[in-house]
Amino acid sequence: MAVQATVPVRNRDDLSLAYTPGVARVCSAIAEQPELVHEYTWKSQVVAVVTDGSAVLGLGDIGPEASLPVMEGKAILFKQFGGVDAVPIALDCRDADEIVETVARLAPSFGGVNLEDISAPRCFEIERKLQERLDIPVFHDDQHGTAVVTLAALRNAALLGGRSLADLRVTISGAGAAGVAIAKILLGAGVGDVVVCDRRGIVSDDRTDLTDVKRELASLTNREGLSGSLADALDGADVFVGVSGGTVPEAAVAKMAPGAFIFAMANPDPEIHPEVAARYASVVATGRSDYPNQINNVLAFPGIFAGALAVRASRITEGMKLAAAEALAAVVADELSPSTVIPSPFDERVAPAVAKAVSAAARSEGVARA
Amino acid sequence: MAVQATVPVRNRDDLSLAYTPGVARVCSAIAEQPELVHEYTWKSQVVAVVTDGSAVLGLGDIGPEASLPVMEGKAILFKQFGGVDAVPIALDCRDADEIVETVARLAPSFGGVNLEDISAPRCFEIERKLQERLDIPVFHDDQHGTAVVTLAALRNAALLGGRSLADLRVTISGAGAAGVAIAKILLGAGVGDVVVCDRRGIVSDDRTDLTDVKRELASLTNREGLSGSLADALDGADVFVGVSGGTVPEAAVAKMAPGAFIFAMANPDPEIHPEVAARYASVVATGRSDYPNQINNVLAFPGIFAGALAVRASRITEGMKLAAAEALAAVVADELSPSTVIPSPFDERVAPAVAKAVSAAARSEGVARA
Repeated sequence: MAVQATVPVRNRDDLSLAYTPGVARVCSAIAEQPELVHEYTWKSQVVAVVTDGSAVLGLGDIGPEASLPVMEGKAILFKQFGGVDAVPIALDCRDADEIVETVARLAPSFGGVNLEDISAPRCFEIERKLQERLDIPVFHDDQHGTAVVTLAALRNAALLGGRSLADLRVTISGAGAAGVAIAKILLGAGVGDVVVCDRRGIVSDDRTDLTDVKRELASLTNREGLSGSLADALDGADVFVGVSGGTVPEAAVAKMAPGAFIFAMANPDPEIHPEVAARYASVVATGRSDYPNQINNVLAFPGIFAGALAVRASRITEGMKLAAAEALAAVVADELSPSTVIPSPFDERVAPAVAKAVSAAARSEGVARA
Repeated sequence: MAVQATVPVRNRDDLSLAYTPGVARVCSAIAEQPELVHEYTWKSQVVAVVTDGSAVLGLGDIGPEASLPVMEGKAILFKQFGGVDAVPIALDCRDADEIVETVARLAPSFGGVNLEDISAPRCFEIERKLQERLDIPVFHDDQHGTAVVTLAALRNAALLGGRSLADLRVTISGAGAAGVAIAKILLGAGVGDVVVCDRRGIVSDDRTDLTDVKRELASLTNREGLSGSLADALDGADVFVGVSGGTVPEAAVAKMAPGAFIFAMANPDPEIHPEVAARYASVVATGRSDYPNQINNVLAFPGIFAGALAVRASRITEGMKLAAAEALAAVVADELSPSTVIPSPFDERVAPAVAKAVSAAARSEGVARA
C-alpha cells in the first residue's frame, strides 16, 4: 500500500499552502473551532487498524511485525470496498491497559479504531475501555464483523426456510471473540435460544471454570440449562455456527433438527465439510471462497465504518450493527436461494447499502454528529 | 491525503491473497524470518510523523488535532519530494516519557520516526530516549532538517566568499530546537566558533539560568567566552543565523564583519529584513519563498529519510547529516551566486542527491542493514 497526496505541490504557491506559512491559518482555525478538524484534515476519513499480533488468523501469537500483512490487507480492503483510508498500527505491547492507553493517545489522528486479531478475553476489555474513553468508533472486527455477517446469513436462511428467528435454537461452537459476539447479536436480533460451546462443552451456569466473559454468556444464553458436549448441544438444534476449528463428527450433525442451517466458518477447514453438511442441512455456509455462501467480514467492516464516519458517529451501537446485518441481508432479498443467503464479497451494492443503513441507525440512536 | 492500494483486489483469488487465507503464509514467513517484514510489508517505506502539538510553527501549543494540518502537509511533502510514505500521528499526551513509551509501542509498524513541532527542551530528551530504544531512525526535523539546510547554505556562501569554515564566527539567535541543532552541526562541520543567544543574551558558562541543554551548549560554543546581548555577539561576527523571531536593530547588523552572511530564517518576518541585510551582507538567505536562498527543510527531510530507509539504517548519524548537507550544497556547485547558495525546493536533483549521500554515509558508518 502507499500514501497518496490528494493535492498537487507543483510550485512555491502550492508549497506555501501545503506547508509553512499557509498551513498555519488552517491550524489556527482548528485551534479556535475544534470541529473544523473534520473538514480540514483526513481525520474523519481514516481508521487505525490496531493489533498487538496476539491472535492472528489461525496462527496465534506471532507478534506485531509478523501481523502487519494482515493489517495491510485489511487497510486495502477498507479502501477498495468502503472508500475508507486505513493505517496499519501493530503495537509492541501486550498489557490490556497499556494497549488502551496507547490507542487513546494516538486517537486524535483518526476517525475510528478497528481492533484486529487481539486475543480473547483481553479483546473484550480493551474494546470496552477504549470506547468508554474515546468519542470515535472503536470496533473489534473479529467480534462484530463476523457477527453482523452471520446474522445477515441467518436472517435470509430463516426467510428461505419460512422460519422465525424466535423459533430457532442456535448452537455456536467457539466462545472466543467471534463466538461471544455472534451469541450476543443473535439474541439482540430476537433468536429464540443460543447455546455456546467451548473446548470443554456447553457454557452453562453450573460450570465452575468460566472466565467473566463466559459467565456473562452463560447468564444470557442456554435458556434450557443444557449441559454436556457439543454433540449434546447439537441434538435437535436448528442452526450450527462454527467459529472454533476442529471437526464435528457426522453422527452429531445427523441429530440436528430437520432442515437445519449449518454455518461452518473455520478456515481453511470448516468444522463440518460442506458435502457432509449438505446431507443434513437446507442451507450451508462456510468461510471459504470456493463454496457458496461465504461468510466473509469484508461484507461488513468497510460499509460499517464508511457509514459511521460519514455521520461522524461517536460509537458503533448494537442498533447500528443490527441495521448493518439487515441491510446486508436485504441486498440479495430478490435472489434468495440455498446457495445465496449472503451476497458475494464483490457485490458492489453491499458497502453502500450497509453504509447507508449504519448512518441512518447512528442518527436514530443519537450518536451521529454530522 | 489518502491511502492507496498498490495491488488490485478484483476477484476471489485476489481477495484470498490479500486477506485470508493467503495472507497467513506471508505472516508465517515473517514470524520465522523477521527481516522479511521489510520485503513483504510497507514498513520499510513508511515514516510516522509524530507530534504532540506543543510547538506548532509560530503558533505554539495548539494541541494534537489542530496540529494535524502540518503533519498532513509534511506527509504529502515526504511523498512528493522523497517518494516516502508518511502517516500523521498527533499524540494526546505531553509527558516526555509517555511520548517515548507510546512511540516505541507503535514503532513495529514504521520504518522511521519523524518528530515534529515538539517543544524544547522536551524534544531533545524524547529524541535521545527514542533513538536509544529503537532500531529505526528517529529524527526531529525541526532540529536536524533545519541544521542540514543551514550548513549547506553556509558551505556555499563560504565557497563563494573564499572563506574557510574554520575561520568563521557564527552568531545564532535562538537556542530552541533549531538553534541547538544548528550550533552542533556547524561545529561538527568545522566552523571556527559559534555563539548562541537566547532571549536573555549570549549563552555562556557564567550564566546561572541555563537548562541542561543550554549548559551543554555553553560548553561546546562561545570559545572566546563572550557575554552580553545579541548585539554584542554580532559585533565582528561573520555569520548571523536567526531562528528566533523578533527583530535585530540595524545598528547591530552594521557591526558585523565585512562581507557577512545573514541567514534570517524567522517566518513570515525575518529577524533582519532582506533589504536591510543586503546593505551589510554578501549573502542573504531567509525562510521565505519570495526572496532568493530559501532555507526550507523540505530540501533535507525527504532525501534524508529516503536514503536512510533505502539501506534500512538503524539511525541517522551525525555523519549522515553532514553528508546530506554536503550533497545538498553540491547540487548548485556549478551555478553559485549570492542569490543561489541553496537549491530551490523544486530542484528535482535535490532529493536523489541527498538520498544517495545519506545511504552511502550510513554504509560507511556501519548503520546500514541492507
